[in-house]
Amino acid sequence: MRSDRILLAHGSGGTMMRELIDEVFVEEFAEDALKRLDDAASLEFSGDRLAFSTDTYVVNPIFFPGGDIGRLAVCGTVNDVATSGATPLYLSVGFVLEEGFLVEDLRTILHSMRDAAREAGVHIVTGDTKVVGKGHADGIFINTAGVGALPAGRDLSGSYCRPGDKVLLSGTLGDHGIAIVSIREGLEFSTDIQTDAAPLNALVAAVIEAAPDTRCFRDPTRGGMASTLNELAAASGVSITVDETLVPVDPQVRGASEMLGYDVFQVANEGKMIAIVPAEQADAALAAMKAAPYGDNAAIVGEVAESPSGKVYVRTAFGATRVMDMLVGEQLPRIC
Amino acid sequence: MRSDRILLAHGSGGTMMRELIDEVFVEEFAEDALKRLDDAASLEFSGDRLAFSTDTYVVNPIFFPGGDIGRLAVCGTVNDVATSGATPLYLSVGFVLEEGFLVEDLRTILHSMRDAAREAGVHIVTGDTKVVGKGHADGIFINTAGVGALPAGRDLSGSYCRPGDKVLLSGTLGDHGIAIVSIREGLEFSTDIQTDAAPLNALVAAVIEAAPDTRCFRDPTRGGMASTLNELAAASGVSITVDETLVPVDPQVRGASEMLGYDVFQVANEGKMIAIVPAEQADAALAAMKAAPYGDNAAIVGEVAESPSGKVYVRTAFGATRVMDMLVGEQLPRIC
Repeated sequence: MRSDRILLAHGSGGTMMRELIDEVFVEEFAEDALKRLDDAASLEFSGDRLAFSTDTYVVNPIFFPGGDIGRLAVCGTVNDVATSGATPLYLSVGFVLEEGFLVEDLRTILHSMRDAAREAGVHIVTGDTKVVGKGHADGIFINTAGVGALPAGRDLSGSYCRPGDKVLLSGTLGDHGIAIVSIREGLEFSTDIQTDAAPLNALVAAVIEAAPDTRCFRDPTRGGMASTLNELAAASGVSITVDETLVPVDPQVRGASEMLGYDVFQVANEGKMIAIVPAEQADAALAAMKAAPYGDNAAIVGEVAESPSGKVYVRTAFGATRVMDMLVGEQLPRIC
Repeated sequence: MRSDRILLAHGSGGTMMRELIDEVFVEEFAEDALKRLDDAASLEFSGDRLAFSTDTYVVNPIFFPGGDIGRLAVCGTVNDVATSGATPLYLSVGFVLEEGFLVEDLRTILHSMRDAAREAGVHIVTGDTKVVGKGHADGIFINTAGVGALPAGRDLSGSYCRPGDKVLLSGTLGDHGIAIVSIREGLEFSTDIQTDAAPLNALVAAVIEAAPDTRCFRDPTRGGMASTLNELAAASGVSITVDETLVPVDPQVRGASEMLGYDVFQVANEGKMIAIVPAEQADAALAAMKAAPYGDNAAIVGEVAESPSGKVYVRTAFGATRVMDMLVGEQLPRIC
């Protein structure tokens, strides 16, 4: 660790967070399931297989265009469980509330959670609430953990990408991150950019049905598509190249990103899925994605090559190629 | 809700927390599993049965005699899963870290978590870390969620207590709460009271083996034994009477409780289990508890009667009987 104190960048989804995970969490816990660094752990359970994942949501502000912290907390964990190829079934929810938080706001958030859970077809089955004194938290933090059922023989992993595979993206990039930052920067009146927060378990199931040899799914949240693809390239020992002209980006999101100096590949999404699929099944996977909820703008955006191992590139509109870097410091604290 | 804002007492484990759960969470989520108000949800899973529970830990201070927030976060959720009669298997862990938190302290906490997980025989398999700016959290908050396997046919519930049943307690009352408050009040040099935080899954398994008709288990954490027994009496529509002279309490804990004006029945425990057992199996259950880890001081402390429904009493050393009330306001914020 380069720092003896926790910095905001340790929660960014970028390289410093990776350092914290590798050098502190994985080292101290020494658990095989953690070392795989997948979004959900795949586990043996009474002869069946279970997927298990957790996320804590500290997004600021808690209400934003198109959603709130409650919708995020359900969709995010549903999506993490779904990335393993499992069917999400149950969620737990743990609240930390700051003294003085409005009960009415809590009700609104719980409504959003219930609606998102119904949409995803999951059940919120157990919970916990802690209250801390004023000034010791910031309104509300929500943890959700999710359990899903993994069909026998289903085995997806970020380490399974192979040269020739195609990279699929389920829709436009950057909506969530830019929706949040537009509020923080006071830009919300000049745009109508909304969060993309959505449950993608039906989309994942449709892609697996159409492309049974799909290597893996990832939802590019903190650190964006850049972090996700760099993790996959490193885990599989392959190179990935994305064609910038093929990546769907809403024009308003593109404009706001440029104005604010963000690389849209590094901006967080909360309702997008990346799938790595063998070339011969890519068209079927794309058709399934486009037909699924939240998949209208899906596209094949890149491909996997053998080398240089662990590197990710962008082929720009002008035909040049640049490295797609992981976020190093902190771009947008508390984006989710 | 009597208040339109969240108060510290809404996290106390007492009547105001019950109001928040009943009138806000259960109402908004409208989920059957939540309505049972058990510490862990018992769920169907691929033809087997699964127990699922979660808790967030916000204890202050994070290091205290006999343990730390890490040990608490593992033991607390292991025990909640165990109360359902399940074998705890897997934990998720979600951290909220305040900017500036010492990495060395984080390592110490992770060590404690690993040691407690090994002792309990559970695996920490998935995790998440969020960092918030200085002043937006208080050092570290930890959520754990736990999954356990429920043997076929095992069905424990706080609603199954019957007249004539015995109340077993696995050891001395109040150690955790008084250990924490002794630090806060600067009393730690005059006592050597330590937290009782411990994994009790082996103890629970031993009791079920010896007393297969055990009605339910509960770990009396926030709100103490008083909240636990009141919840059981209400859920089962029975009365419970505890004999004060039979309840094991460490003399230092008793002294500190009296000095600080606490009712030891309302003080939090983190390594104690209450079991409700049919009278004819109570001696076998007690013997199993005493032989199990952390059960040395176990005792039969009370019994269940038919009426008045929902009421809990203490028979005092002087032969008088008083109501054992649930905590109403907040006694010890951030005790766990």
